[in-house]
Amino acid sequence: MRLYLVSRNPKKVEELAHLAKACGIELVPIDIPKVEIQSEILVEVALYSATVAHLSVKRPLIVEDSGLFVKSLNMFPGALSSYVYKTIGVRGVLKLMEGVEDREAFFESVIALAAPTLDGVKTFRGSVRGRIAEEPRGTGGFGFDPIFVPEGYTTTFAEMGIEEKNAVSHRGMAFRALCRWLLENCERIACEGWT
Amino acid sequence: MRLYLVSRNPKKVEELAHLAKACGIELVPIDIPKVEIQSEILVEVALYSATVAHLSVKRPLIVEDSGLFVKSLNMFPGALSSYVYKTIGVRGVLKLMEGVEDREAFFESVIALAAPTLDGVKTFRGSVRGRIAEEPRGTGGFGFDPIFVPEGYTTTFAEMGIEEKNAVSHRGMAFRALCRWLLENCERIACEGWT
Repeated sequence: MRLYLVSRNPKKVEELAHLAKACGIELVPIDIPKVEIQSEILVEVALYSATVAHLSVKRPLIVEDSGLFVKSLNMFPGALSSYVYKTIGVRGVLKLMEGVEDREAFFESVIALAAPTLDGVKTFRGSVRGRIAEEPRGTGGFGFDPIFVPEGYTTTFAEMGIEEKNAVSHRGMAFRALCRWLLENCERIACEGWT
Repeated sequence: MRLYLVSRNPKKVEELAHLAKACGIELVPIDIPKVEIQSEILVEVALYSATVAHLSVKRPLIVEDSGLFVKSLNMFPGALSSYVYKTIGVRGVLKLMEGVEDREAFFESVIALAAPTLDGVKTFRGSVRGRIAEEPRGTGGFGFDPIFVPEGYTTTFAEMGIEEKNAVSHRGMAFRALCRWLLENCERIACEGWT
């Protein structure tokens, strides 16, 4: 089965390609503009993106949106994490956390699936709890990975290999939910014919 | 001439109503969802919003989007100012500016106009340079007004009355550009018939 991925982030493509391979999916990045709305609700952002992308290319596709939600910052940067990363970055978030005791945070991922044989858009979620590190550590992953330590770990996402990160990450969890659903519903939605 | 305003922000509605009155426009707030895309480019956000709103209500309308762009923060919070205001707020931006010498910033406003007798959407810009105050001051205005001191002034936007703020603000400048354009083009676009 072939699935297109609307993304211009090579690191995200790489992580999702690993997950897709384990699910028997051929994941093909597709370079079209991704329309992202300003919403605190990740599901809304992904739903809208997938709907617009599908109207434009009419192929089976997914979009993946994720965000880092920091409890003591009123869930900032949340659904707008990539914009915040590009402007004030990891250092900005660490500065906002200076002197803050409560470092609880979570990463959330939403994958939205659209295809000609599907009614509407289907979404899949994953989330992982953790805390904001005092200093950035590691060079793997992308975005805020160097300052996120998942619950039960001492290493940041950026200190993990791609397989290890996928096993615990919000994105891995969301993709595995997509994979399970496709396996269970493939016949009904004729997913083997997706090209 | 009647013009609808897509906004759920009563303070913004109030400022624009003052400006509209001076231009002989009856400005009517309209309570429909405003779709805002994630873009660093304010013009894109306003264009998209106005297009979607106009498709839905098919009446002459404007949307106004504005943002505070701080030079030493890579133009953060920029086009996403309202989201940043709702999460980390004025205190968050002041914390990011702690110890930062260069406090240069500007406010920008874009008004997008859509109407049945117009070809496409027309946009109008206004911007005002200034600096980020050390502490919030004043209770007028909204958003980041308490920490923005326009060039040539010692008071923040929040310390000004509505007329004084409109005379110097980005929003006032954008609205006056809209007003001038409407006066010059009213006959051609039959704006007197807008209801």
